[in-house]
Amino acid sequence: MGPSGVGPPTPYALGDSSASATRITPGFALRPEDIVLAAAQGAAKPSEDVADYALRLGDDALILAQRLGHWISRAPELEEDVALGNIALDQLGHARSFLSYAGAAWGKTEDELAYFRREAEFRSAHLFEQPNGDFAATIARQFIAASYQFPLYRALSHSTDPMLAAIAAKAVKEVDYHLDHSTQWVLRLAGGTAESRRRMEAGFKVMWPFAGELFEDDPLTARLGGAAVVPSSLKEEFGRTTGAILAEAELDVSEHPMATGGGRRGQHSEYLGFVLAEMQVLAREFPGAGW
Amino acid sequence: MGPSGVGPPTPYALGDSSASATRITPGFALRPEDIVLAAAQGAAKPSEDVADYALRLGDDALILAQRLGHWISRAPELEEDVALGNIALDQLGHARSFLSYAGAAWGKTEDELAYFRREAEFRSAHLFEQPNGDFAATIARQFIAASYQFPLYRALSHSTDPMLAAIAAKAVKEVDYHLDHSTQWVLRLAGGTAESRRRMEAGFKVMWPFAGELFEDDPLTARLGGAAVVPSSLKEEFGRTTGAILAEAELDVSEHPMATGGGRRGQHSEYLGFVLAEMQVLAREFPGAGW
Repeated sequence: MGPSGVGPPTPYALGDSSASATRITPGFALRPEDIVLAAAQGAAKPSEDVADYALRLGDDALILAQRLGHWISRAPELEEDVALGNIALDQLGHARSFLSYAGAAWGKTEDELAYFRREAEFRSAHLFEQPNGDFAATIARQFIAASYQFPLYRALSHSTDPMLAAIAAKAVKEVDYHLDHSTQWVLRLAGGTAESRRRMEAGFKVMWPFAGELFEDDPLTARLGGAAVVPSSLKEEFGRTTGAILAEAELDVSEHPMATGGGRRGQHSEYLGFVLAEMQVLAREFPGAGW
Repeated sequence: MGPSGVGPPTPYALGDSSASATRITPGFALRPEDIVLAAAQGAAKPSEDVADYALRLGDDALILAQRLGHWISRAPELEEDVALGNIALDQLGHARSFLSYAGAAWGKTEDELAYFRREAEFRSAHLFEQPNGDFAATIARQFIAASYQFPLYRALSHSTDPMLAAIAAKAVKEVDYHLDHSTQWVLRLAGGTAESRRRMEAGFKVMWPFAGELFEDDPLTARLGGAAVVPSSLKEEFGRTTGAILAEAELDVSEHPMATGGGRRGQHSEYLGFVLAEMQVLAREFPGAGW
């Protein structure tokens, strides 16, 4: 364990007071350790299916955080360094919550899930492992990611699984900002210089094909019923909100083909291996060293 | 300007993922744009000497932020990813304040100072440009940095220059966390396994020699009188606080030689060039492109 918490916990009451089986107090801060504790007390232990679903969400956020973290002090403005760094840390926070909850089903910690799984065990969609490319490509990826995560987490905040609902209710407020941030950059780059517009177009050409996988249903999401959000149910809103911004930016993505997915089944592009190598090397160098 | 409303991160609780990294702080009154505005209104325009001094402080923080940002999703624990990422963003916030203030003397923006100076124009001390090495080396560097910055900013919060005093008064609260964080890691690594102890010792062997430069006086700090903090005046407290922790950790740094400095005069090790190449490439690729 690192240094202990030093700030007052954010009051966080699970909205549904009728879920009296859950011993979650008003001071419950939804920290990973709170999630682990609640699961250990039997108040919120996920089923296998819920855990598999939480793993997908956590892996998306974890891989995206790793990609975004790269930009600290490398963005085109110091203000933007701070913004992308903050978004990376938000995603990392969401990843920790989802992975802690998933791990509660299998007796594994967030760190064990992050650092000691093989590539084929990761459930992230291909969008998130795409390389940063230039700044415009990162913004294209981020715009797609936030346009997906915002309606996803908003809907998931009404999940019949109280812990998923609580994690999503917190995350959606942050992703709301992420969506605003990337939207403003899409408009700015598309409406800027000829070169920034050319790069924004090139960014969408690379990233747009990976949007399709995000809305693919499969047996797991069907089985989960009201606990999960059916991916295809988000497609219309995603199309409407991205369509409005892309129209305002006068960007046309309609000709970009959709890529074959497979991330939810552990089939990844060659990029994920490199992400994991960087991410996992230190923890694996000293397994169980206690740091 | 990027998207609005992205203030520097608020002081955070280590390990508390409920602290949103993108929280907007309505009452925050010391944003870089506030500093620029105050200077433009003639309320707080720095003298040349004050600007040179602010540049030193800003460069220290900027280069350290670049080094620390690397760790997001590469630390040995997810909790530690978040902690080091937050520390990097804090340092970046301090850098933006100091560089904005320095730039007000010369009609330059924080971004112009960060991205369009040559290596010999940077005034950071050599400690901050040292490579991350392994995690223990990063912790050694961070322990030295925080043990220096904490008394520095505390003293500077009483500067006769009101803007330096205000920036330092805000920064010292964050650096207080940084010092606690690195202190706990030094104790943990030194008292952990044989291997973690060996690495902690090796980390100090690499980093300790660069502590000496931090406490060297020169004509600038002498001329500034009560506006600046005389570096040598911090040496005793630094020795006392680091000495207590190193004694508790049973680490001996007394045999490590002190390196020759020169950073305050623009003489850098070979490492700064690589840091700047990464940091500056994007902004330089499209100078004046407006993004």
